[in-house]
Parts: sequence; structure tokens; C-alpha cells
Amino acid sequence: MTEASDLTLEEKASLTSGADFWTTKAIERLGVPSIMVTDGPHGLRKQAGASDHLGIADSVPATCFPPAVGIGSSFDPELIERVGAAIGVEAAIEDVAVVLGPGINIKRSPLCGRNFEYFSEDPIVSGMLGAASVRGIQSQGVGTSLKHFAANNQEHDRMRSSSDVDPRPLREIYLRGFERVVKDAAPWTVMCSYNKLNGVWTSEDPWLLTSVLRDEWGFDGMVVSDWGAVNDRIAGIAAGLDLEMPASGGRTDAQLVAAVQNGELDEKVLDVAASRALQLVRRAGERLAVDGPLDIVAHHALAREAAGRSIVLLKNEGGVLPLVPSQKVAVIGAFATEPRFQGAGSSLINPTRVDAALDALREVGGDAVSYAPGFAVKGGAIAASGRSADDLCDEAVAAASAAEVAVVFLGLPASQESEGFDREHIDLPAEQLAVLDAVVAANPNTVVVLSNGGVVALPFADRVPAIVETWLLGQAGGGAVADVLYGAVNPSGKLTETVPVRLEDNPSYGNFPGEFGHVRYGEGLLVGYRWYDAKDLQVTYPFGHGLSYTTFAYGDATASVRDGDIVVTLGVTNTGDRDGREIVQAYTSLPGSLVQRAPRELKAFASVAVAAGETVPVELVIRREDLAYWDVRVDRFVVEGGEYVIEVGASSRDIRSSATVGLEGDAVRLPLDMNSSIGEVMAHPFAGPIVQQALAGLAEPQDAAGASMMEGDGMEKMMASFPIGRIVGFPGIPVTREQIEQLIAGANAQG
Amino acid sequence: MTEASDLTLEEKASLTSGADFWTTKAIERLGVPSIMVTDGPHGLRKQAGASDHLGIADSVPATCFPPAVGIGSSFDPELIERVGAAIGVEAAIEDVAVVLGPGINIKRSPLCGRNFEYFSEDPIVSGMLGAASVRGIQSQGVGTSLKHFAANNQEHDRMRSSSDVDPRPLREIYLRGFERVVKDAAPWTVMCSYNKLNGVWTSEDPWLLTSVLRDEWGFDGMVVSDWGAVNDRIAGIAAGLDLEMPASGGRTDAQLVAAVQNGELDEKVLDVAASRALQLVRRAGERLAVDGPLDIVAHHALAREAAGRSIVLLKNEGGVLPLVPSQKVAVIGAFATEPRFQGAGSSLINPTRVDAALDALREVGGDAVSYAPGFAVKGGAIAASGRSADDLCDEAVAAASAAEVAVVFLGLPASQESEGFDREHIDLPAEQLAVLDAVVAANPNTVVVLSNGGVVALPFADRVPAIVETWLLGQAGGGAVADVLYGAVNPSGKLTETVPVRLEDNPSYGNFPGEFGHVRYGEGLLVGYRWYDAKDLQVTYPFGHGLSYTTFAYGDATASVRDGDIVVTLGVTNTGDRDGREIVQAYTSLPGSLVQRAPRELKAFASVAVAAGETVPVELVIRREDLAYWDVRVDRFVVEGGEYVIEVGASSRDIRSSATVGLEGDAVRLPLDMNSSIGEVMAHPFAGPIVQQALAGLAEPQDAAGASMMEGDGMEKMMASFPIGRIVGFPGIPVTREQIEQLIAGANAQG
Repeated sequence: MTEASDLTLEEKASLTSGADFWTTKAIERLGVPSIMVTDGPHGLRKQAGASDHLGIADSVPATCFPPAVGIGSSFDPELIERVGAAIGVEAAIEDVAVVLGPGINIKRSPLCGRNFEYFSEDPIVSGMLGAASVRGIQSQGVGTSLKHFAANNQEHDRMRSSSDVDPRPLREIYLRGFERVVKDAAPWTVMCSYNKLNGVWTSEDPWLLTSVLRDEWGFDGMVVSDWGAVNDRIAGIAAGLDLEMPASGGRTDAQLVAAVQNGELDEKVLDVAASRALQLVRRAGERLAVDGPLDIVAHHALAREAAGRSIVLLKNEGGVLPLVPSQKVAVIGAFATEPRFQGAGSSLINPTRVDAALDALREVGGDAVSYAPGFAVKGGAIAASGRSADDLCDEAVAAASAAEVAVVFLGLPASQESEGFDREHIDLPAEQLAVLDAVVAANPNTVVVLSNGGVVALPFADRVPAIVETWLLGQAGGGAVADVLYGAVNPSGKLTETVPVRLEDNPSYGNFPGEFGHVRYGEGLLVGYRWYDAKDLQVTYPFGHGLSYTTFAYGDATASVRDGDIVVTLGVTNTGDRDGREIVQAYTSLPGSLVQRAPRELKAFASVAVAAGETVPVELVIRREDLAYWDVRVDRFVVEGGEYVIEVGASSRDIRSSATVGLEGDAVRLPLDMNSSIGEVMAHPFAGPIVQQALAGLAEPQDAAGASMMEGDGMEKMMASFPIGRIVGFPGIPVTREQIEQLIAGANAQG
Repeated sequence: MTEASDLTLEEKASLTSGADFWTTKAIERLGVPSIMVTDGPHGLRKQAGASDHLGIADSVPATCFPPAVGIGSSFDPELIERVGAAIGVEAAIEDVAVVLGPGINIKRSPLCGRNFEYFSEDPIVSGMLGAASVRGIQSQGVGTSLKHFAANNQEHDRMRSSSDVDPRPLREIYLRGFERVVKDAAPWTVMCSYNKLNGVWTSEDPWLLTSVLRDEWGFDGMVVSDWGAVNDRIAGIAAGLDLEMPASGGRTDAQLVAAVQNGELDEKVLDVAASRALQLVRRAGERLAVDGPLDIVAHHALAREAAGRSIVLLKNEGGVLPLVPSQKVAVIGAFATEPRFQGAGSSLINPTRVDAALDALREVGGDAVSYAPGFAVKGGAIAASGRSADDLCDEAVAAASAAEVAVVFLGLPASQESEGFDREHIDLPAEQLAVLDAVVAANPNTVVVLSNGGVVALPFADRVPAIVETWLLGQAGGGAVADVLYGAVNPSGKLTETVPVRLEDNPSYGNFPGEFGHVRYGEGLLVGYRWYDAKDLQVTYPFGHGLSYTTFAYGDATASVRDGDIVVTLGVTNTGDRDGREIVQAYTSLPGSLVQRAPRELKAFASVAVAAGETVPVELVIRREDLAYWDVRVDRFVVEGGEYVIEVGASSRDIRSSATVGLEGDAVRLPLDMNSSIGEVMAHPFAGPIVQQALAGLAEPQDAAGASMMEGDGMEKMMASFPIGRIVGFPGIPVTREQIEQLIAGANAQG
């Protein structure tokens, strides 16, 4: 087994950057092979043929599973793990060592162009689902690259902008998911992001890549740069960036060699990076060869199952859904024949096949299903046909009028959703909304089916009886949509992200995407539903919302402490006549907390299948560590003691049962000093009584009408905030500085 | 004339801290006198008799003018200057050298306990009115202390909390007013605040107290600490904090002497501080003695005039106001007899007399004015009477039923508004709202008169025909309220602060008051109306709003450039039959700006008297410097060139006329470097064409369906944000790093 110590300086350096766009360097002398990494994360994007200079050429066919925005709605680690395993199999067949994913960045703004690659606005969801993805892929002996580490929440100026984030939101929102995946699932690699974090390139941040990732979280894998993220290679390797990708043409390898030779860089740093590279190569080598060909049919079926689980039924009034096969259905909207099933950029898969919803619907409804494109999608067949918008709209209206139900497929054009740039609004194209309005006027019994990688405003939410959010569903989405519309699949997805009424309501609005190289995360902890709840803002659909064709009743929740964690149990009953699946959510709060907290924070969830009429026991485990806040006074996570309120609900705004449970807190010992406030000193068990006595010796503020400075207990409140060291020198204060110093020393000695 | 060089080391040190609570130290050997400073700013709070240890004892009677929250509503520098001069006279009579005011901090949150001492949520208003106050007081040979410098926008933990503010909001919102006052009015002293700014105590921040205040702004006076604000005296004096107040009992003087002696502190630093102290003493000595007694009557009359100008008529439907003397009026609410006319804390004046509104109303309306207290104010006479709330309410309803008009005086209890702590909500007391509801039910013809130092929610705004916001009006407010209610004074005040629908709508909500020693100014530039406008939020009454008993028509505004400034002219016509005064406001915006800007920003205003039927020409000068944004790339204010839109209006949401004017911008030269984006390089006149040519040599991204990474112009957009130095090493990119370095050097040489 080759060790770093077997390598020459030049060989060590050679292992710290790529051979080309997708492979590491071999060391033939020692039999160290080159390994290949490829884009992911919702399928394999392995370039076909030779690597080109930008990595953008054709890739080999692979199954396009639902991107994270879709599959995340399942809230189901088990499903995501199965899909991950399938991706792992495809990677193994292609001899790919590492799939570059999952991406678990927080959806800070709906505008972020890459949101379709991410799971949620919530860190627990992102972390638990990201861990499932890693477990699934790595179960096949294929590595993952957890990305983009960290605080990369926009595409605008992504390669330079500094995400300026305060400690609590950084730890509790933006890093918490990464921490969870690293600790629970041990990804082989972590990919640093392009951006800066609080002014420091993440690719050369020793705090992020070493102190936090390795020392605190125990990560033992390799850190790889996002492609082109290296700013200063020497600073990077010293910070803990092991592998630069893609190749630097030998330039940075030579820099490292020179830096070691001239004493600028300790060779041990290079040893560590090289040994991590060797470890990765070893891990990759342990996988047994998997022969192809890929079982396209089986993986497509899994993609269809996953797509069905990704669909969120936002609204369904009057039982318009599911459709009945004999119903006359007018399918409207070009997305029904030209599906949008993935986003653009490095995650783009060359699918083995693609199902269109119209075909799948006709497999059930047959001739009862009519079709009118309604509008043209840029670059699509309808656009090429040259028909006018009016003509298309008139045809759609005619079709809707002649049908019992109109099913209108709306969505974002592919050009609006991509890696590399952000959206500038969250509106659907005006021409689509116009067609919808015309259709609804002709036939109010209209179902809207949405295809979009990022959240869109739904100004029609009050005007149509049913809305089906399908996000981006991957290659088998067409069939899955038909499954849900006709009821073969009972929808069970829920929102991992709030649907706001207006973009302006979003917490990052006004602080997105920043300017001149800085973006301030000014909303702090109040990301996503935390903000909408804290501000008591109306939303179109809340976080966690999603309907079923059946209904669920929640029993009374009970909460208890087990091994430090909180265990919540309840029964969930399917009160309808159709089997279904419910995503049960547990939110916590701590009334009277010492620190800012959102009104409720998701801490656990479960996706449970419940047969019609049955009751299923549900256990939700809230990990103690997930209750912790980052305490800036002591620079660590602290669990505050107290009576926690556990709200169990079907969504963040549909709480069905509550329980409280007392938890012992972590001890936080803060020594007193001269800047401790009088209030803090007076609250101290040792120092308090002494100060109380001293203050009693002071004259009371006079109460002559209009002449006393303060009313009521104002003076007391004001004095309580005075640093004790400031007042001792004041004229007339009958204690000396030395006495106070003694008092503090005495108190600190008591503990 | 004594110079610092005449002093011994110990004497110099002695001049850098107070002798007691209110005076500086004399140096009898050299005939340097002690001078006295006293609290302000809306009157004199000179302690009667000997200084006590906390400075809270009785003070000598003085005229209590309207606090800043009131008089600010006049938007009238001339009025504020007259009041300032009167305060200067009172100070001179009492031989006070410096009045500790004005306070011009920005009202970031309505909760700030000290908002009543501040002018506005807008820096131009704060700066212009603050400058007027300084000019007025200093016109009498009495100094001022511009406070609290800086970013002290809350009382909670005010002595320790760090206000964490990004460069643009710091410069454009929080420092802009201070800059204006320093440059326009040269206050004798500036008072540093208690808090930290971005982690540094303002009392020891060399950047704030020297680089910004003196080097950039040219301040030549003395910096004095807020009382007890000194943390580290040596760091403080080195940073530019000249005078520590109050006395330290000699402790810190000795520290300074020792620090000079042991080489820790350059004696020159002490020389500078001492010479500033001597300069202040000299300035104070130049004032001729002013003999008393104070002309109480004349100053009370000025206080009444100022109070009348401070009142904001928020609503007046159906001409319910002004009242007619013969009308049967039911005055309800204990504030009519127990006026709240100032806030608590260091600004609290011992007034020469206090007028109650009920008395003043009866002077006009006589027996037609009935009275019922309606509710008890804590500590007041009604409370002492022991009558029940129901009884008081029933009596109020009976009075209202028997009258033609009910005038209900509501307000915040004094205990809720004070220096030293913040409010926790913006609601009026529930018992007052209950009485109002009962009164309105009995007599819909109800006028609400408000007394409050900070903004309150007005849930009844749609249910009463008239609302009069009187803020805190000083000792003559009772008469002024009668003047306005009966029409002797035509109200003309306007809001310097938005009245939001809910506290949750406020921009600082969620970031106020911070915790554990930090408060993040996460809303950035979007303070006050800037936020409500940017988010298109409904407000109860917008910034700049205020009605009159007459109406004004605005002519077309024209805008032109004069000496670099923008001059806006228009005619304003009084279209009613009553003389009045209108506050004309000019807001700017720059469509397509390079940087974030609020939809509109106030840049100029004028309070103009217009006789009934007359038209008055109005000229508003928008200073070029007030259009500048702080450019973080070059660390200075920059005026962006372009077509500025000038909106002239009667409020921020009642724009009457617009004009545009082109302005030449300041040049900003940014050199290219390896982290310049390809987009930036391509936009460069020299480098752009060269890169264009190089890129043309690269293969186009392939367009095979489903296989190309990007749709449409996505790849182009993505590439434009790539730092040029990152791509040159990429495999297959046909340029070398050296070529790019040459390109950049060449471009930078061209300029």
C-alpha cells in the first residue's frame, strides 16, 4: 500500500491537482491509478469520449432521477438512499470513483439559480436528506462530494462574493446540514465552494476546512475544490484544501514544490494532502467491478417512483383530483409534451429516456384526453411552428370548454433556471398566466400542474380548484404526473420551502444578491419559514404543506427524554378510504429563551405509509444536539435548559398536537469582569448579595414631581445595565475599584 | 493665553477628566477656570445645589421646549434655531458652558427608549435639524455636544452592545447626519456613545473619533465621553477621546501620567487633548455674562409656538377639525389634565410651568367643554382616587354621548418611555384602547389626540374621523393642542418617522435589540421608509405625512444643476381659505443604479408659509454630496452619474410632481487583476477586444439536445462571472497566465 512517505516531493504535489477535467493523476512508478470523478448529483454526468476543455460536451446516457428540489419533497431518507444506491450502481458501471454531490446548500432566496439542486430552506431537512444521499451512493463503493462548502447560496458573482454571515446563522442554519452529513454519513470528499465566507475564500479558509470540518466534526476524507475555485494554491493547501480541480496544467503543482523548497510551506502539509489523495484512491480501488449494461428499465421505474413521491399537491378543492379515466380532460400547455425535468449546468444529465405527461395521461385516459399546447416554450416545437400566441390561446380555450376538466401545465422556461446566474423575479411567464386566465374563464374546473426548479408566485392560487407542484421530476416525471393525476399514486410530497405571496416578503429581499463582492445575510437566523412565522406574514403555502387524496388524523403527542434526545410519539390515522403517506413534522420552541429563536423550528420528521382506516404509531426523535444554539460568548453549541414545546403538525402552519418536555441545559460558566453589568453581578449567587448591600447604602433617587430623572423603576432598569467597572470611579460611589476587583475575584473563585 | 505647553504633565492629565459630575477641572496656578456642562437638549437640566453622585437630583427651573420627536415634525431649521437660541440664553444665564445636545441618532426601531430625544429615521432630516439646533445654541456663546456618536440606536445593553453595521448603512444612514452637523454647524464638542461599533468601543475607536470625525470631516472641537462611557482611558485618549466625564476620582488621570512616564503613551497625545480642553475653556470664556432672571413668559410663548408647529394632523375626515368654540366637546382621557410632555432620563427638565390641554381648551370653549378622565394614568391623580376602570369608562361614554364631538387624549405612560431601556411593543395601553372603543361606539364623531415619545400602532385609524399626533410637546403643549384643535394654529407638522401597521413590519424586527453584546443592523440601508417602500408594505401613515386645515396644490417641478448641486423649483399654492404652512419634500432615485438604493430617499425639504389663495415659489437644493453612495471598492463617497429622478411630494407616498436631471458622476478607476471577472475584463476598453478575440478561438459549447450543460445564453452568463485568473490554467484554454498578466498590466497602464 502506497504511503505519502513513498512519494517524491514532486509526486506528492502531483496528487493535489487533477490530470484533466475529471481525473486525478496516476503515479505509474508506484502503481497509483488515476481515478475519475463526475458531476451529479441526481444522476451521472460522465463525459462521453475525451474530456473537453470546459467539461460541457455530451455525457453518457444515465438515468435522470428527480433533482433535489423534487425528491426533497418526499422528506424520505429511505427513498433518497435507494435512489442514491441506483446512482452508485450507474457510477460503478462507468468506473466512476466519486459522484460530485449531493448539494445541500440552504435555499436562502428563491432567486438562487441553483436551488433546484438543493433540498430545502431548513438545515435539518437538508442534512438528513443529504446524509441519505451520501449513504445511498457510498453503499455501492462509490464516493460522494458533499457540496458546496459553505454559505454558497446564490449564483450571482458566486466566484468572488463574500457571504457575510453572523456566527449563529452560520452555525445553526448554513453549517448545520453539513455537520449532520459529515457526522452521520462520512462522505468521502467535501467540495469547497467558490465564494468567500466572511471575507475569506472558502478554498483557503483554515477555520472552515480544518478547524470546523476536521477538528470539530471529525471529517477524515478529502477536500476538493469546486472547479476553478482555487485562488491561492499555497494558502489553500495550508488551509486544508487537498485536491485542486480541474488540472492547473502543472502550474500549481510546481508552486507547491517551490514553496516547500524555499521553506514557505511545511512539507508535512503536502504529506497530509497526498495521503488523503492516496486514501481516496484506495477507497475507490476497494470497489469490485460492476458490469453493465445498466438496467435502464428498472432504474427508470425507480425514477418514476421517486418522481411520484416528489409531487406536492398544493390544493385540491371539490375533489377535482384525482381524475377519473372516463372524464373528458383537456391537457393544455407545451410542458405536457416538452417536459422540463431537470435544470441546467453541471448537473445536467443525458437521460436514457424521457416521458412526456401527455403520453402517460393518454395511456390512462385515451381519447378522453385532448391536448392544446396553449403557449410556446422557447426553443420547443410549438415555438418552431410559428403559430401566434392568440391562436394557441384560442385553441386552448376551445379545448378547455369542450372538456370536463382542464389540466394546465405551466412552468419556468429552462433559460430562467440554471447554475451560473440567478433569477430576477419569481413570476411565471406572463403569456402562460394569460392562457391560464383564459382557460379558467372558459372552464373553472381547472387543475394547474407546475414545472419549476425554484419557487414561483401563484397569483392564481385562489382562482383554481387544484394545484399540483411537480418541481423538476427527472426523466420519468411524465408518468409520475399521470400516476398522481389519475390517482394510481396518492400524492404525499410536502414543501421543503415556503411559497411566499411576493418576492418582497422573502427574508433575503434587500440583501440579495449583494454588490461589490459582499452579500450580507441580514435576516440572520430568520431564514425561510422562520422569517414568515416570526413576522407573522401571510404566505401562499407554508413550509411543510402538502395534501393527499386521503386525510390523516393526529393523535395526542407525548414527549419524553431518552439518552438526552427528545422522543415524540403519537398515532396517525388515515381517516379516508385510500391508502396514503403522511409526512409528520415536529417543531420546537422554548418560551422565554435566553436567545433569539424562530417561533418554531423543524427538528424531526417522518414519512409514514398509512393504509386506509389504519392507525400507525409514529416516533420522532429530536436529537439533543439539534436543539443547541451557538453561544457566541463561549464559541460553542449550547443546549439551553427549560420546558421545550414540541408542536407536531402536518405543516409548519397546521399544528395538530403539542407537548412539552423539560430538558437539562448545558452549563455555561461566564466569569464576571469589570464590564459585567450590575444586573449580572447582582444575579450572581456570591457577588449579588454583597452589591445589594452596597447599593442600599446609596441615596434613593428623589421623587420630586418633574425633577427626578426617571419614572417608576426606570432608574433601576438603567442601573442594571451599567458595567460595574464604570460606576466605581463615579464621584460619591462609596466603593473602590479595588473592592470591586476583590468582589469579582471572589465570585469567580466560587464559580 | 494658556497653552498645553504651559502645563505640567499632571495638569494636562487633569484636564482630560471631570472635576465632578458636571464640571471640568480648573488649574488655578494658570487661571484656567472650571466650566460647567449640563444635560439638554430641549431645555436646560442644571442641577440645583451641589452635584450629587448620580446627577439625578432636582434641577433649576428651565423652559421645557418640545423634545426632538416633537419639534422635528416641524421640519423647520429656522424654528429649531430660534428654540436653540432660547436654550442658549437660559444656559448663559446659568453660566453653563456647554449644553449636552442635540441627539441626532437615527430612529432605527420604534422601540428605542430614547427615540423621543432624536429627530428622525432619516439622516438628512436628523442632520439638518441637528445643525439648526447647534447653530441656535451656539449663537449665544454656549457650546453644544453632538451626541451620541455613533450608531447608538437602542437602550438595551447600550453600554456594551456592539452595533454591527456594514459600511454603506454606516456611512449613508448612521453617520451622514453627524457629518452634516459637524461640517455645517461646527459643534464645540461631540459626545461619544456608550456602545461599541463593529466590535470597538466608540470611546476608544481611533477610526471613528479621529480618522472619520477629524481627518475626514474636519472637526476641530473636543470629544467628550458619555457619562461613564470610558472603558480604557489610555486607549481612549489615543483614539481621540479628549475628556472623560464624569470625574474618575483622579484614577484615570494618574493612569495617563503613568502611561506617559513609562512610554506607553506619547505625551503629544495628551498635549492635543489638553489643548482642546483649553480651547473649550477659552470659547466658553468669550461669552459675555448674561443676567437673569429668565423671561419665563417669553420663553413659554416660544415653547407654545414650537409645540404648535410640532403637532401632526394625521387624519381629518368630514371636517371634524378644527372645533368650533360653541360646539359641545367632551374631553376624555387623563392626559388632558396630566400632560405627558417630555421623556424620562438625562433630558428631563424641571419646567417653569406646565399647561394642561383641558385648561387651554376651556379658555376657548368654556362651559361647552366637559371632561371625563376615562382612565387612570399610573401615579396620577385619577389613579390615586381609587375609582374603578368601569366607572371611569362609563363616565367617559356618558360625556361623549352628551357632546357633539369627543376628543380623546391617549398616550403612553411615562414608565414606558425613558432613557435606559427600550419598549417591548408599540401598543397603547389596552385600557385606553378599550375606553376609546366605548367612546367611539357612543359618539363616532371622535378625535384622538396622542401623547407619545415613540411611535405607537394605531389600530383605530380607520374607525375615527380625526387623529392628532402631538408627540411630546414640552411644557406649553397644552395650549398648543388647544390652538390646533380650535384652529388658532393651522397644523403643519409632518412625520419624520413612519407609523407602521405592526411592529413586525419594522425593518429592525428580528435584529433588535440583539443578544450577548451584538446587534446586527441586518436591514442595511433599508431603514424606515426606505424599507417600507422597498418591500411595498402597507403603512398606517407614511414618512413625511401630515395634514393641514387648508390644502396645497403643487406646480410642476423643474430640476437643474447649479454648482454641482441639484436645484428643484416649483410653485406651491394654498388652494383653501385658511393660511397655512406646507412641508415640501424632495426625494431622489436613480433608475438602473449600479448600487442598491431605496425606491426614494429624502434629499431636501422646506417648510413654507403660504397664505390662503397664494402661490409661493419653493426652491429645494439637493446637495451633490447627499447623492453620494459609499463605495466599498474605493472606501469613499462616490456620486454616480446618470439621470436622477426627483420626486417632489407632500409625503413619501404622496408624490405630486417629478423631474429628471442628468448629473456627471465621480470617476472611479478600478485596476484589473487576476480576480477581475471575464465580464469585467471584456467591458474594459483596452483588454475587452483582446479577450473577445481569444474566446472566439474556443470551441462553441455543443448543442446536442439534453447534453449541453447550459440552455440559451446561460454559458455566456456563467463565463462572464468567472475570474480571469482562474480559467487560464484550465486544460485546453489557449492562453497562458503570462499572457493574461501582460493583458492586465497593459490595461492598467492605459487606465
